[in-house]
Parts: sequence; structure tokens; C-alpha cells
Amino acid sequence: MRRVAVIGVGCSKFGELWDMSFRDIVLSAGIEALEDANLEGREIDAIYVGNMSGGRYLAQEHISALIADYAGLAELHIPSTRVEAGDASGGLALRQAYMAVASGMHDIVIAAGAEKVTDVGAEMAMDILSSSADREWEVFCGANLPALFAMIARLHMEKFGTKPEDLAKVSVKNHRNATLNPKAQFRREISLEVALNSPYVAEPLRLFDCAPISDGASVVILASEEVARKYTDTPVYISACCQASDYIALHSRRDITTMDAVVYASKQAYKQAGIEPKDIDVAEVHDSFTIAEIIAYEDLGFVEKGRGAELIREGVTELDGEIPVNPSGGLKACGHAIGATGIRQAVEIVLHLRGDAGKRQVDAERGLALNIGGTGATAVVTIFER
Amino acid sequence: MRRVAVIGVGCSKFGELWDMSFRDIVLSAGIEALEDANLEGREIDAIYVGNMSGGRYLAQEHISALIADYAGLAELHIPSTRVEAGDASGGLALRQAYMAVASGMHDIVIAAGAEKVTDVGAEMAMDILSSSADREWEVFCGANLPALFAMIARLHMEKFGTKPEDLAKVSVKNHRNATLNPKAQFRREISLEVALNSPYVAEPLRLFDCAPISDGASVVILASEEVARKYTDTPVYISACCQASDYIALHSRRDITTMDAVVYASKQAYKQAGIEPKDIDVAEVHDSFTIAEIIAYEDLGFVEKGRGAELIREGVTELDGEIPVNPSGGLKACGHAIGATGIRQAVEIVLHLRGDAGKRQVDAERGLALNIGGTGATAVVTIFER
Repeated sequence: MRRVAVIGVGCSKFGELWDMSFRDIVLSAGIEALEDANLEGREIDAIYVGNMSGGRYLAQEHISALIADYAGLAELHIPSTRVEAGDASGGLALRQAYMAVASGMHDIVIAAGAEKVTDVGAEMAMDILSSSADREWEVFCGANLPALFAMIARLHMEKFGTKPEDLAKVSVKNHRNATLNPKAQFRREISLEVALNSPYVAEPLRLFDCAPISDGASVVILASEEVARKYTDTPVYISACCQASDYIALHSRRDITTMDAVVYASKQAYKQAGIEPKDIDVAEVHDSFTIAEIIAYEDLGFVEKGRGAELIREGVTELDGEIPVNPSGGLKACGHAIGATGIRQAVEIVLHLRGDAGKRQVDAERGLALNIGGTGATAVVTIFER
Repeated sequence: MRRVAVIGVGCSKFGELWDMSFRDIVLSAGIEALEDANLEGREIDAIYVGNMSGGRYLAQEHISALIADYAGLAELHIPSTRVEAGDASGGLALRQAYMAVASGMHDIVIAAGAEKVTDVGAEMAMDILSSSADREWEVFCGANLPALFAMIARLHMEKFGTKPEDLAKVSVKNHRNATLNPKAQFRREISLEVALNSPYVAEPLRLFDCAPISDGASVVILASEEVARKYTDTPVYISACCQASDYIALHSRRDITTMDAVVYASKQAYKQAGIEPKDIDVAEVHDSFTIAEIIAYEDLGFVEKGRGAELIREGVTELDGEIPVNPSGGLKACGHAIGATGIRQAVEIVLHLRGDAGKRQVDAERGLALNIGGTGATAVVTIFER
């Protein structure tokens, strides 16, 4: 296996992009990445794109061909492949692109993620997002994603004493970080009081415990180590990119306060990278709901099981803390453009490792991205180093 | 790159499977493949699944995790990845699985394809299938898949003198072959008169020029050459599996009577396998419409451009001809279970190369499968040898 580098990154604005079509959004991220890598389209060998539900959001499948075409690459006839695993679709695209380069199959590969959700109404958008859970045994019975994460939160509170204030603090931190991110959807600080008094979405989860559903696209360009040297003096290397699965429905899992797919994928990733959790300097984790960030602290091994809330109480994961988590603002405040999220997380980590993260820059040599699908039936953990 | 072998194949019945759920259909194919390979689930390293539109057909995305779970593999936490490119989704799953084994990343990998279409009405099913074409520039304007292939057929007739009788003969051949295939959806011979007098779907394409939209699932199990020897004395090797893209909308292409993605993918595949078109003994091609089979003859190099109809006139592609094409009955008569089709084609070729194809057995050392997405914006060409 060859060493794989990130040689370019791009990201559209995240948010309700009423004036941009799906095609426009993808292009804006793609052009930024190509310019960042100083690369021409014809040098690309293959494309992987993560997209959760073009079929239902846009009545358009075959997004892979559409993107190759609108990126002006159709005449090259290069392979373009869509991958999907709910909101872990971006992470899967990153992993397939990583495998394609690591294996020697291709030299320069695009990993993209994109979703346009605001062409359907909010109720439909939520139903579509919830189709990452078990439709027959969960969603048809009324257990959509907020309801499922509410059950997870309730049991975590019951077993480990996690408090509503702990959840709210995750939201307050992520909103504060997003004020420093020009691509973020929500760029205003919120107070603990505002978060704690916002309406319930699914008790104990309140409005500010839930990430929005956003439009957006992100792109990273991967190359083999040798090829990367021609394009950049500041390559960021991927030292591991591991994926794991779990039972799709919560009721089948051994313990809903742990996401086994995250535990498996991260253990494998640490092993492959030859490091331990304490070696991670910065992380982007999948805070689709605030409880998911606290559980991620535990499942990634940043702290032992049940003590995740302590990290947010003690400020360990703040921008100036020991392990800054979600410096971008996370899914909560940067926005959650479903299929784009896994790639956007990668973009954020790469910016920090290159020293290009602007006002939110943290000091880091190694970073981690955790992207999950639905309630955690798919997890992708990627470790980056400069 | 390592040599990759097929060590097991399985296929559900294709058709209107009212009494089976999506999960049941996938399991029936999966169990058959595991038994065929004499393999236990826990020996599997990864899963790739081709599925075009679980989101719209079933309101269920995240099919990858669902399948790993219902196959009893969730406790292994192995990576499971859905890929999609319209009705080329199965071909993509085969290619990703092939790459995963060839690269040395995994030793034993499942490539599956599955679709359950009959849970929605016929009109909706056609609209969903047509979302593999360009929704904004083709389908919204009324140009669904039959209309687009009708334009292709009309120009092929105009330029090259292809006749309605030639199209009908493809259908008659494929229906005749399907009578010998116990898994096929349509197992009755049709006469040329019946085909030529069936109602127009989109002139010049009549009912018998159009493949049905079917429920079904197929599975192949791939392994490295070394591992394969432990499981089978009759491995079939994949000597190439190549994928290419083209403009998604017909109006952007240089010539709609040629599918450039097929030309590119097949040239690359022949080169990688070190063979020429004439070395192919049997082929499964993507006859979603009869005209597509005739164009496939040309684009795969079995005959020069414009002379495809001669092969069907002269019986070259009949079961007892020089290059039998679609011995299974093809999409037209075996059935077209969208995301399953690319894998079903692989199953068929493997059965012939092993000598396990029953009454439809042809004498073959090398076979080819061509799977396309929509009107050909994605093509996957796979070459097998025994």
C-alpha cells in the first residue's frame, strides 16, 4: 500500500442555498479544490462522490455521472462512483478514494460529498434523513432520527449522569467556533440559557441539541506521496481510513450508549496509524445531535466510557483546550449537508494541519475525523498527519 | 495487483416477487452464494452492494448497513458500502469488490446487487428508473428512458438501416433463451409477429423492445487466487473490470448511436486482459432496450459500427451461434432488477465458464459482461476466464 496525501481541499458555503442548484454547489467546492491543488481537471484519474439521497431530494440518481459531466470531465471518460451510507456517505467516498490511491490503482482521485436538501419541505427532508435508520422497524413506527437519539441521550443520562447542561454546552461551544468559520451556516454565539430554554424536539433533546439539515458540498483531492510532491509543499497525509458497520436498528445493539462501529473503526485506525487516542491534537466528530459528540469522546477513546460529559464541563474540547473538537462549528453550527459532511470534516482537519484555518487555527500535527451514518450503523474514522 | 477469482455465485428468482420483502430477496441470493462457495459468513472481509434507489422504491437508504445486519454479519462490524450509478450499480459493486481484493486490502469480499421495485406503482417505478438520465434537461421535459432510447433507435435506423425486425429478433432470441433459465421472469417463447405487433411504448420501440422492471438480487463472492484455492477447484478469474463515464444527457454526446463509455471501458478491459473482442466466447450485455443490445455488439467490437443488426440477422449471437449473447435471457426476458443486473450478468458468465449453466450451457473459456447506467453515462465491462 502506498502513502496517500491530500493535495487540495474545497468547500462551498453551508446553509440554505436557495439561489444555487445542486450542480452549482458541487462546482463551487470543486473549483476551489482544483485551484487549491493547482491542478487541471484532465489530470484526475477517478471520482468518488458521497451523496445520501439525490433520488428523493432531487429526483436524480446517477449523481456520479452528473458530477463528472458538470465538472467538465465527461470527455475524459474516467470512472465516477457514488457511494452512500446515510450521512456517512462522505466518509465512504473518502475511504474509497483513499483505497484507490493506496492500492496503486490510481494516482490522483477526487473525493467529493454533496447534498441539496432545501428543494423539498422540512418535514420531507427529515423523513429522508431518517431513511438512514431502519425504515420498517423504527421509522414507520414513528422513531425518526431525533427520537432515536433522544433514546440514546436518555439512557446515557440515566446510566452515567450526563446532564441537559452538558448537551447544551456542546452546542454553545460549536456555535462559538462557527463564528470564526466563514463557510458556516450559523455564525452567532448562543448562550447556555438560550440553548437550555429552546423548545424540545424529542425530549431530552432541544432545538439547539439538533444539527440543521443543510445544502453544501466539499471536495478533497488525494494523490500518492510521489505525485503529491509535484503539487504541494504542504501535503497532509492520511495515516488511516477505516470503516465499520453495526446493526441498523437500535433495538438490536448490545448497548445503545456505545456505538460499536465507532469503537471498531477507531481502534483499527489507531493501530494502522501506530498511535493512541492521546496523540490526536484536533478532531472533527459527528455531532448530528449533541449527545453524539459526547458519546464520540468516549467511543474514540478520548476518555473512558460514561465520562464524556466531563470533557465538555472541563473545557478540554474547546478551541483552546487540550483536544479541540469541532473547531469548524461541527454539524451543529457549520451545518450538516448530509453526504457532504464526511468530506467537510476532512477539509477542516487538513486546513488546521496546514496552518490555513484562519481565526480558528489550532496547533496540531495529527487530526481525526469521525463520520457516522444514521444512529451509527456505519462509521468512518480517518487520521491525518502533516 | 493480485489475481481475483469468483468462488461463489447466487441469484434470487427475478420477477414480480410480491410475497418477498427486499430483505428476503437479498438473503435468498446471499445464502445461495455462501452455500455455493462453501463459506461461512464470518470469513467475509467486506461487502459492496449495488442498489439504484432504495430511497424512492422503499424509503430506505443506508442499504449497506441493512444488508450486513440482515445477513447476520453486523456483529463482525466489517465495512459495507453501497454504490450507485443507475442500473450500472451492480457493475460498480463488482468493480469495487474486485479492486478491494486485487489491491490486497481484503481477501474475501461480497459483491451484491439488489432492487425491490414492485412496492411502488408502475408509473412511479418508471419515473424512478428514469432518474438515471438528466432530470433537469431530459426527464422533466418528458424524455424518460424509453423516449431517450427511442431517439437512439431512430437515428441508428436512419444512419445504418437497422430495421424494426432486427430489434424484434433480439427480443425473440432473449425470450427463447430465458425458457431455459429457471430464475428468469419470462419463460415463454414469443414469435416475431407477436413482437412486431405489440403496442408502441415510444416509437419505434414496442412493448417487446423494452425490458421489464423487476425485483431481484444477485451475489458473487470474490477472493484472491491463493485464498480461492481453499474453497473451489473451479475458480473463475476476473481478468479485467473497467469502468468509464460519459455525458449524462444525450444532447451533449458526440454521437448518440455510439456509447463512448462502453467503447472506452471495453478497450481498456481487452487491453488489461490481453485479448481481442474475437476471443470472447459468451457475453451478457445490457439490453434494457433491444436497440441497446445491437449497439453493444458494435461498441464492444464484436462487429464494426453500424453493422450490429447483421449479427442478429445471421444468428451469430444465438445460443448456438459464434458468440452467444444473453444466454440468460438478458434484461429483456430474465428480467431487469436494476441494481442487481450487473451482478446477475456476472453470475451467468461464471455459470457458463464452470459448466454449471444447465440446459442453456454454451462452450466457453472466456466471457464478458457489459452493464450500463441509464442511457450509457456509466459503463462497466468485466472479462472472466476459467
